[in-house]
Parts: sequence; C-alpha cells; structure tokens
Amino acid sequence: MIPIISIVGKSDSGKTTFIEKLLPELTRRGYRIATVKHDVHGFEVDREGKDSWRHKQAGAHTVIISSPTKAALIRNVDRDMTLDEIRDKLIREVDLILSEGFKKDVQPKIEIFRKARHKELLCTEEDHLIAVVSDREFDVGIPCFSLDDSKGVADFIEKKYLKSKKEEEIILKVDGRIVPLKPFIRDFLMGSIKGMVNSLKGCEKPNKIEIRIED
Amino acid sequence: MIPIISIVGKSDSGKTTFIEKLLPELTRRGYRIATVKHDVHGFEVDREGKDSWRHKQAGAHTVIISSPTKAALIRNVDRDMTLDEIRDKLIREVDLILSEGFKKDVQPKIEIFRKARHKELLCTEEDHLIAVVSDREFDVGIPCFSLDDSKGVADFIEKKYLKSKKEEEIILKVDGRIVPLKPFIRDFLMGSIKGMVNSLKGCEKPNKIEIRIED
Repeated sequence: MIPIISIVGKSDSGKTTFIEKLLPELTRRGYRIATVKHDVHGFEVDREGKDSWRHKQAGAHTVIISSPTKAALIRNVDRDMTLDEIRDKLIREVDLILSEGFKKDVQPKIEIFRKARHKELLCTEEDHLIAVVSDREFDVGIPCFSLDDSKGVADFIEKKYLKSKKEEEIILKVDGRIVPLKPFIRDFLMGSIKGMVNSLKGCEKPNKIEIRIED
Repeated sequence: MIPIISIVGKSDSGKTTFIEKLLPELTRRGYRIATVKHDVHGFEVDREGKDSWRHKQAGAHTVIISSPTKAALIRNVDRDMTLDEIRDKLIREVDLILSEGFKKDVQPKIEIFRKARHKELLCTEEDHLIAVVSDREFDVGIPCFSLDDSKGVADFIEKKYLKSKKEEEIILKVDGRIVPLKPFIRDFLMGSIKGMVNSLKGCEKPNKIEIRIED
C-alpha cells in the first residue's frame, strides 16, 4: 500500500513552501510522489461549454482529458474523501502520498511550526504526529527538524516509510475491503499463488503479481 | 477489464451531442461511465500560484485536488496515452469507458455520420468499427442506428459489452503486463484462490477478490 504522510500546520506556517522543498529532495532520490490538497471552495477544472464539461453535465461518473503532456481526471463525489479513499480510488504508480493539511485524517503527520506566528503545536502524538519542522526546539518525544532541513525530513521519511516498500508484501481485498492476514495465511496464500504463477510460461521471475476475480 | 468504446466521426458530425444523449441512457440503467476526450491544445487545470500548481512545479508526479463535491487529478505524461494506458493508469470504479475521438486507437468504434456534412465514412471494419449512427442507411455489414436512437445504441452496447461483466472473470497481471490464461490454468488459478480466500473468516461469499504481491 502506498504510504501517506500529511504535512500539517496552522495557517501561514509555510506548509506549501516546505512541500516545495521536500518534493525535489524526494524525487531526486527516485521516488514518485503524489500530493493531495483539500479545496473547500470548489474549483473549476473544465470550463463551461467545453466537451469534457458537457460529458460531465450529461452524467459521466468520471471525465478524463488527455493531452501529449498531461492528463486530468475529474469525478464527482458525494462528500469529502478520506486520504485512504483518495489513495484507493484515485492514485496509482507513485511511491508516497504527501497531503497538505488533512489534520483530522488518521494518517501520520509532520507539523510545520513557526515561533513568530504560533504559540502551540496544532497536533499531538494522539493525532499521529511523527515529526515537527520548526524554527524552535520541541521536547515532545519525536524528531524535530529545522525549517530548511528538507534533506533531514526526506531521510526520515525514506527510512521510516519508503524502505519497507522493498520488502515483499501481499494485499488481499475482498469486495473492496482489505482483509488483514495472519502471518501463516499470508505466507500460505503468497507461496501458493507465486508457485502457480511461476509455472506459467514467461512468468518465471515475477516482481509484481496482480489478480482480480469477479463473480 | 473495463470495456472501451470510441465515439468517432469527422469534425462537426455531432459526437459530443450524441454522447450527451447516450450517457443518461446508460446511467439510467445503473452503469457508471467514464468519458475520455483528447486535447491537443493543452489545458489549464490548476491556476498558476495555487498550492496544487506549486506542488506540480516542485516535481509532484500526481496532484490531487479534493473537495466535498468533486475530486481532480492531474499528472504529467511524456506522450499521448493510448486508451488502454488511460484505463490502466487512471480509471477506476466504472463499468464502461466512452472516448470521444481516438480514431487511431485500436478500441471498438461507433461512428457518427451526417449526410449533409460528409460523403464517406471515416472508419471501416479494419478500424474496429462496430456500428454507425447516421441520418442515412449504410450497408456495411454492421448495425446502423438513427441519430436520435440513443436507446438502440445503449441496448447494443449493453448486450455486446456490459452483460459479460456479470460473468465470472479472472485477470492476472505480472509486472504490469496481462498474462493470457488458457481455460485450464484460468479455472485452476481461480478455483485455488477462491478456495483459500473462502476459508478466511468473513470472506465466505466474496464477489470480488483482489490480490497484489510485490517483491
């Protein structure tokens, strides 16, 4: 599963600015990053009257606009999605998801804090705070990085969330829900499937196996 | 796999207008439809200076904007994606993909034709033409519907592409590539996995099983 980390902080703490420094640090190391930003005001993606806008108006669940340099997808939702839902319903082919904000979500959080602007941290460990980035020291039992130490934060994220990607893993979803697997079941299922797939022509050394069965 | 149908036709034949009639006909029957439109001129999704735009500029592979009513995703690509790639990399949770245009793609096509505007069909059966929608008759060995017969076209699409969704199917992907399965292997793999998953608590009657193994 793609790990998610939320960059949180009170308004004007410099979340976007820090993300702008962190992104090149992580992409330089070869990771593909998705960012997620919440927008309460609504946003205009395809202008009224354009074909894609007409598709949407006529009832399309999802609309894609594809060009030689970028692709966009727009879909209706009936409420704010959680970061888990955003990962499951929208994001593919990245190694890490960084959200800006989403303080109320359950994902691990890194808080940006500026002493000139704020008095207290926005989050505690109960909010799944895993690190602070600030121009003052905090003694809250978690790592504290300076505001310009995007390299240190990237090291921290890489060590804690990205190295594990290299371990072997199996995810089982039944009817859209992830089924937790005990180690024995996990090994049995993984071993059996890999054994079967290995025996197929051209599939001798698979790095990634994906299976979908629908009734 | 989500079926893809391209609505093609020369310029000004009424492709968007026909899609606007077809979409409500299909969504009324309970199908979720994604539409795909090609844009050669490029398009502006998130305005310069906005946070999501800054994320993209700083190197994000994918940017998501989430609101209570809709969600948008933008990602860079290095060339035009095929419809297959668009399906695999972007689209989830729909029953059918309708593209407007994409004449050169290999997907099945329905051509919109108006006699006042055009002399000859744009596509032949070699282009995977499966039906014509027109204000004149064509004797080309495939079904021909009138321009206002969105119901007839919906029946045709439903019968040919959507009913099969209800059949049991298994898709195996190894390292991102779909592996064709002979009937015996297909049944063996499906039977074994369903047997194993069935035996897990709470997974007695799965409609959909998804497994991902990564090395």
